[in-house]
Amino acid sequence: MNLQLDALRQAYRDGQTTPRKLLLALREKAAALNPDYHLFIHLLSVEELEPYLANLDGCDPESLPLYGVPFAIKDNIDLAGVPTTAACPAFAYLPERSATIVEQLLALGAIPLGKTNLDQFATGLNGSRSPYGACPNSVLPEYPSGGSSAGSSLAVALGVASFALGTDTAGSGRVPAALNNLLGLKATKGLISTAGVVPACRTLDCVTTFTATAREASQLLALTARFDPRDEYSRSNPAWNDGSAFGAPKPFRFGVPRAQDLEFFGCPEGPLLFGDAIDRLKALGGEAVELDLSPFLEAARLLYEGPWVAERYSVAGELMEQRPEAVLPVIRAVLAKAPAVTGVQAFRAQYRLQALKAVCDQALDGLDCVLTPTIGRPVTLAELDAEPVLRNAELGYYTNFMNLLDYAAVAVPSAVMDNGLPWGVTLFGRAFTDQYLLGLADALQRQQNPALPTPVSPARNDRARLVVCGAHLDGLALNWQLQQRGARLIEVTHSSKDYKLYALAGGPPLRPGMLRVAEGGVAIEVEVWELPSRELGSFLTGIPAPLGLGKVQLADGRWENGFICEPYGLEGALDISHLGGWRAYLASRD
Amino acid sequence: MNLQLDALRQAYRDGQTTPRKLLLALREKAAALNPDYHLFIHLLSVEELEPYLANLDGCDPESLPLYGVPFAIKDNIDLAGVPTTAACPAFAYLPERSATIVEQLLALGAIPLGKTNLDQFATGLNGSRSPYGACPNSVLPEYPSGGSSAGSSLAVALGVASFALGTDTAGSGRVPAALNNLLGLKATKGLISTAGVVPACRTLDCVTTFTATAREASQLLALTARFDPRDEYSRSNPAWNDGSAFGAPKPFRFGVPRAQDLEFFGCPEGPLLFGDAIDRLKALGGEAVELDLSPFLEAARLLYEGPWVAERYSVAGELMEQRPEAVLPVIRAVLAKAPAVTGVQAFRAQYRLQALKAVCDQALDGLDCVLTPTIGRPVTLAELDAEPVLRNAELGYYTNFMNLLDYAAVAVPSAVMDNGLPWGVTLFGRAFTDQYLLGLADALQRQQNPALPTPVSPARNDRARLVVCGAHLDGLALNWQLQQRGARLIEVTHSSKDYKLYALAGGPPLRPGMLRVAEGGVAIEVEVWELPSRELGSFLTGIPAPLGLGKVQLADGRWENGFICEPYGLEGALDISHLGGWRAYLASRD
Repeated sequence: MNLQLDALRQAYRDGQTTPRKLLLALREKAAALNPDYHLFIHLLSVEELEPYLANLDGCDPESLPLYGVPFAIKDNIDLAGVPTTAACPAFAYLPERSATIVEQLLALGAIPLGKTNLDQFATGLNGSRSPYGACPNSVLPEYPSGGSSAGSSLAVALGVASFALGTDTAGSGRVPAALNNLLGLKATKGLISTAGVVPACRTLDCVTTFTATAREASQLLALTARFDPRDEYSRSNPAWNDGSAFGAPKPFRFGVPRAQDLEFFGCPEGPLLFGDAIDRLKALGGEAVELDLSPFLEAARLLYEGPWVAERYSVAGELMEQRPEAVLPVIRAVLAKAPAVTGVQAFRAQYRLQALKAVCDQALDGLDCVLTPTIGRPVTLAELDAEPVLRNAELGYYTNFMNLLDYAAVAVPSAVMDNGLPWGVTLFGRAFTDQYLLGLADALQRQQNPALPTPVSPARNDRARLVVCGAHLDGLALNWQLQQRGARLIEVTHSSKDYKLYALAGGPPLRPGMLRVAEGGVAIEVEVWELPSRELGSFLTGIPAPLGLGKVQLADGRWENGFICEPYGLEGALDISHLGGWRAYLASRD
Repeated sequence: MNLQLDALRQAYRDGQTTPRKLLLALREKAAALNPDYHLFIHLLSVEELEPYLANLDGCDPESLPLYGVPFAIKDNIDLAGVPTTAACPAFAYLPERSATIVEQLLALGAIPLGKTNLDQFATGLNGSRSPYGACPNSVLPEYPSGGSSAGSSLAVALGVASFALGTDTAGSGRVPAALNNLLGLKATKGLISTAGVVPACRTLDCVTTFTATAREASQLLALTARFDPRDEYSRSNPAWNDGSAFGAPKPFRFGVPRAQDLEFFGCPEGPLLFGDAIDRLKALGGEAVELDLSPFLEAARLLYEGPWVAERYSVAGELMEQRPEAVLPVIRAVLAKAPAVTGVQAFRAQYRLQALKAVCDQALDGLDCVLTPTIGRPVTLAELDAEPVLRNAELGYYTNFMNLLDYAAVAVPSAVMDNGLPWGVTLFGRAFTDQYLLGLADALQRQQNPALPTPVSPARNDRARLVVCGAHLDGLALNWQLQQRGARLIEVTHSSKDYKLYALAGGPPLRPGMLRVAEGGVAIEVEVWELPSRELGSFLTGIPAPLGLGKVQLADGRWENGFICEPYGLEGALDISHLGGWRAYLASRD
């Protein structure tokens, strides 16, 4: 059965199944899979499921956006009444209250299937570091599932849940997505509440989702990205990132790491598969721009070589001191350095990170996103066994820097390797570009699967476009108002043939009025500028009557934000339409 | 001679003086004051001044915004070729390059007079912790100047510089302002570059200005708030905070600490003077709202009781270990706790601060700013001598939390105490509200001194106002677009009598068009909403043609951002002006 959100909603609507029937069947399926895959640490019993199902009895399916949607919860995220173990039995506690994200999902009608296996304390990227058993890959069992959100990825990949919650501090929500053909969303830090989540590194942790499609991830993020007073790291989501517009990207520029920064660890297929992904983004209207990835990679090295282990220690350290045998040796080895970290070192490393972030942020200027492989080379369980720390570290080559640098990232399936193993890429960008990245990921998925529904409106970017026709044109008197807001000129073009251009009475500065007319209009010379969306509001505030901002149609039929004029302001104005543009008018006055 | 920026510009324009004449005279004056006030650690020699003066020879005074403006530099900020001591001779080094802020000021035409005295390593709030001598108050010499930016405050207060640069980590730019009748601006962290500044706490440090007036502070900030690639903590200034609109606040709401949070340490005048300041803000159109200051005060306690001493130690620690006698005993006492701070403690304290910041930010919701005293009680030099640590700590009661919580703050003169000592208040608010706060401070100063020039346009807030007239009205179909952006309804009113209201063809949703007309217009029922300025851009992007946003005139004559309509879109529309508003129209259709 297709468990994707839209399909499941339709199935409920059509009466093909009920939440109770479905959940009990999925429970059976999960129980049957568990001896081989170890995906659940705690699968809810029929009795434990019942209250959630009973909640939906007599409920109108249309009234709840996630009515009867089965989901799995990584076992470092609290579900009230079920132990949270973080894959360490000695650490386990029984939470009275669910994590905020779980409470949100339950209130939306979703049903939890159980708590999933993970690399202990979410420390690992492979899925084999658990006393509850190693998680094999969903496609090729000689490979690991990836981790640390191992069981959550398997729950979706093996068809027992529509989606699953993971966490991600260094790649734990993206590496398993790549290895199991899933969409892994590591949203901007603070958008999804981490209240009720066992911290790995409190300042870096994110809750993630695994879904089959970007479209579902977008829906889940739109439903759950809410400011949470329970989480001091919670952040308000700006409106351009609310997901109400989604998909079908406009022309865009994406960064591609320089050849010397790419690392496939000897995997011959990697470069070819990544090249294909670049071509596919180009086919969507993207322009590839070379990017120096070295400062991003340097930031990544701070995570395990620097003082952030002190954050991990602050969670598991006490237990490890008291009962070393309760913590896996590989985790103990990671945490061993922590007690020696001094406060001075902690601050100095934060300075270094800040310096690197400044460099990386600057590298992102003018880019809408960056494309990388999600992992350089998949490793087999045997290889992991031989070199557990080195192979694990390799898996994080492209993922470790993201949370430290405060970026949003989407791991999206991209290809299948010759041996049948899924292979994926990551799109990342500035904080609060999540829905924009998901729109691009959706377009990539629709390239491969035309049966996916086409979105209705283009995704909003954190950048806004603005059509100008007068004193704001490049080099003219008021252009500084755009420059000062970080705007860049992206297109010199014309309006559609529906406008009249007037020189308004008064000034200086001389000001134009561009008026859309039903007939007798001409094409006017205009420029399209792009600026941070957050700056557009103050720009509007500075515009005097009778001018304003509305929608202007361009020669190719597109509508963009641009200057409009109220007709009362045309008294005493001069019709200069025949000149075709403001520059020609200025020249005519010289 | 009046050294305020506008007056000095006029004096140069009128040929009353020249930069060379003025600077040499000020140099003489400073040299004469220094034996009593110890304000300069290094006063530039005539030879050292000459190159800066020569730079201006033959230069058009109008071409440089700070042509010939004398300024002083706190001696923890680099001036190329002059030692930086941080008031610790053993720490001194000779910088080859000036701090970015100094380079900016020099390029704007300002002339440095010298490097000023400070509490050693900027650790102190009183101005007496320096081997170069204690700085007495500029008005009553039995009081301290305040610190740590002691000499910089005196340079302006004693009339040897138009403005001076200080630094501020916990109040060092505000306490001396209050004690010397100056405007002390601690702008939002990262707006003024700290490249080339000796750190106190690198993550908290700000460069500040001392000026006579808020108007000058606004001009200086507008000229220098630039993103600096040399400073990894540099931040871009949003356009609403660029200072191009300044002064004359609109109706606003300001927080006032609860009675139990106010602390005057036994000073009987304090409550009266603070009450007066509240009344003066009310007279400017402010509505006072009680604020629980306790979480702010708890954050303050983290600074000296928590791991942030490790930041101070990372600068001076090595020297202190090697040559303890080179560091003042009181500074050694502050730093002594630092080596014992662990990385785990450092992170845990940051978690606590983050939690407090979440609470404090929430308390600021719906407020435009907060008013507090700048210091609770001025202390005499004798009192400081008797209890150096306790009295110093008292001076920071209202200032210590600001940098930790990432707020902007302006210390503004407010009154004179019975003994003649200046007394001041602080206006603080969210990051990037600097120019708005300065606009309020300017209005406070103009209340007392009507001779100050009246600003031409109202200060822009980080909140924008929006007039709505249709489906966005409270409770109607599209109102969620405002609610989702954190908007609040602030006024139900009418437009001026210059509008026609139409019901546009098409829908749902039904949409109105509000058209300003030269004659035959009526007043239309509207609502004024307020939302974060950064959200207005995406709101605009979501508005379909023929609607847009421009300026709408209200019944009382004000113009605010609001919905406008292009006339081509009125084809097939219904004139509903006679109903007076959209709600009446909807009711008429029922």
